[in-house]
Amino acid sequence: MTSRRRGAAPVTLKDVAADAGVSVATASQALAGRGRMTDVTRQRVRLSAERLGYRANALARGLRTGRTQALGVHHQSAAASLATAYFRDFLAGAIEAAHRHDHDLVVLSSDTTRPRTSAPRVDGVVVVDPIADDLRARELMEMPVPVVAGEHVPAHMPPCAVVAADHATAVRTVLDAAAAAGARRPLLAAPDENSGWGNLLREVVVAWCAERGTTPVLVSTQFATRSVDTERARLTPVLVAHPEVDLVVGASPFAALGALQVLRALGRTPGGDVLVAACADGQGLREEDPPVTAVELPAHALGAACVERLVSMLDTEGGADAALGTVQTVPAPVHLRASTSGAVGVLR
Amino acid sequence: MTSRRRGAAPVTLKDVAADAGVSVATASQALAGRGRMTDVTRQRVRLSAERLGYRANALARGLRTGRTQALGVHHQSAAASLATAYFRDFLAGAIEAAHRHDHDLVVLSSDTTRPRTSAPRVDGVVVVDPIADDLRARELMEMPVPVVAGEHVPAHMPPCAVVAADHATAVRTVLDAAAAAGARRPLLAAPDENSGWGNLLREVVVAWCAERGTTPVLVSTQFATRSVDTERARLTPVLVAHPEVDLVVGASPFAALGALQVLRALGRTPGGDVLVAACADGQGLREEDPPVTAVELPAHALGAACVERLVSMLDTEGGADAALGTVQTVPAPVHLRASTSGAVGVLR
Repeated sequence: MTSRRRGAAPVTLKDVAADAGVSVATASQALAGRGRMTDVTRQRVRLSAERLGYRANALARGLRTGRTQALGVHHQSAAASLATAYFRDFLAGAIEAAHRHDHDLVVLSSDTTRPRTSAPRVDGVVVVDPIADDLRARELMEMPVPVVAGEHVPAHMPPCAVVAADHATAVRTVLDAAAAAGARRPLLAAPDENSGWGNLLREVVVAWCAERGTTPVLVSTQFATRSVDTERARLTPVLVAHPEVDLVVGASPFAALGALQVLRALGRTPGGDVLVAACADGQGLREEDPPVTAVELPAHALGAACVERLVSMLDTEGGADAALGTVQTVPAPVHLRASTSGAVGVLR
Repeated sequence: MTSRRRGAAPVTLKDVAADAGVSVATASQALAGRGRMTDVTRQRVRLSAERLGYRANALARGLRTGRTQALGVHHQSAAASLATAYFRDFLAGAIEAAHRHDHDLVVLSSDTTRPRTSAPRVDGVVVVDPIADDLRARELMEMPVPVVAGEHVPAHMPPCAVVAADHATAVRTVLDAAAAAGARRPLLAAPDENSGWGNLLREVVVAWCAERGTTPVLVSTQFATRSVDTERARLTPVLVAHPEVDLVVGASPFAALGALQVLRALGRTPGGDVLVAACADGQGLREEDPPVTAVELPAHALGAACVERLVSMLDTEGGADAALGTVQTVPAPVHLRASTSGAVGVLR
């Protein structure tokens, strides 16, 4: 109906609506990817907008919807953690999900040597692995935007919606398998109370033991420890003092690898008279002798689920408030390997 | 000097400066991570700011510096490309560099089924692998913010600063090695003129041949082709028609792998009477029989260099204008393997 106008007044939404033969409201919804209409109608409006050279005023649109169409992701040490498969996969899942909903994905600065000089321009934030002593995470969680925590939140942090791997089911699967192989006295080496993940693992193992009338030996590690040597040093005195332990569950692969070294040094046989497992796979656990049972953390699915949760909170009236304190879980497959199939009861 | 004030007027920069015993200007620079001062002074100001609970007003700061402290990265198919090592490594390098400078890194939405509903809130943009028919890239390159292209820009796209792998040096190394082994008649299979990378490869190979009084056989492929079958189908008629070709250079590993299949089907011996190389390593080229010579694209270093370039353009008065049309290169190692060490001249 109208041909491209050159040097004339800017093309308005009204022009687009007239060209496409729809109401202004329908044209607006079609261009925003919202509203109910046939694909044909939506496509017709878009073609009209394109043909007329219509460009929504970004600022006006931002003011109207109050949205930046950007979602933030925070990780205490994002830059350093890009070396790990976990964070790379998490980020890939988050980016894919954000782009599916036509949102930008902002990897928030993890330079913690100075305070942020400005608040990030985002509609919401995903905080990956919230740690109690992460001041930036705390700062972000107190911003007036919805927050999804990618993993359980430790005590004394602001409440938010949680999306986490289903560690409880996975760890119970590991414990049950070890029990079927004869294990009775578990030791758990898990991050201290700064980590919501560590807290959950402790709860699960303590509850499982209580159901069997026993108590686990608990060793506190640090969340970010990525050193077999450190874990070995931490575990040595405990395993010396507790020869009755017949199952060592390490939260991280490093803890499980450290345990293997200590146990061998003590003359014990991993997979034989003592079982070993990890609550996170990786670091060649599968190639160990014996191969070590481990939980596969679903990093990619978790990253996607965090973003999906955030978008649905943003798109639903009152969605952010309703989500506070909720926990959504993502299945975490367990790889049962030889390290938990030994016949402990028989061999001892 | 001042203790934390509760419920009083907001702490100002003046309060912080007084507490730290420095001028307001110094306090401002210290908190912004700018200016010349000792680390001790900078630290003293930060401690004062922290103790007093000073928080720069984000909006005011944004208005004053005109900066969002966020940098965008655009890739035509960012979400899909996360499956490739190249884009993952590029992104990791970009994020690390951005965070080193305390900037957020925005992975811009690659949903191209609809136009952007708002301009991204970023100080500048890195466009990865700019392709002429990528309308979003064009849109971003026309925004009033500095743009760095991560790879050469095809004709008819807006000018910008370029940071690219040093393909010219790398490909000449490959060609020289093949020539030393007797190759005289190269074929280049490279992306069409939509790709600045493809254009550069053509220029280099044509110039190298001209220096030797010959001309290459040129085959146009598509930039995003990630299929050996497609490349094989494209190469078959050309290699049948040009039995004199004694060196096949594929831009992508897929083109090189396709060439291997065609050459074998034609009864030729890759690494023997015909040499093969790729301008990008990957897809198991190293494990082929014979292992295929290839250029290692420095994705991580390139991602970091693009962001460093953008930050320096932003931090320098007039830096963005001065950078227009400049090309900065990052070394690209060449892995010479058996596929180019055959004695072509002798065997034919």
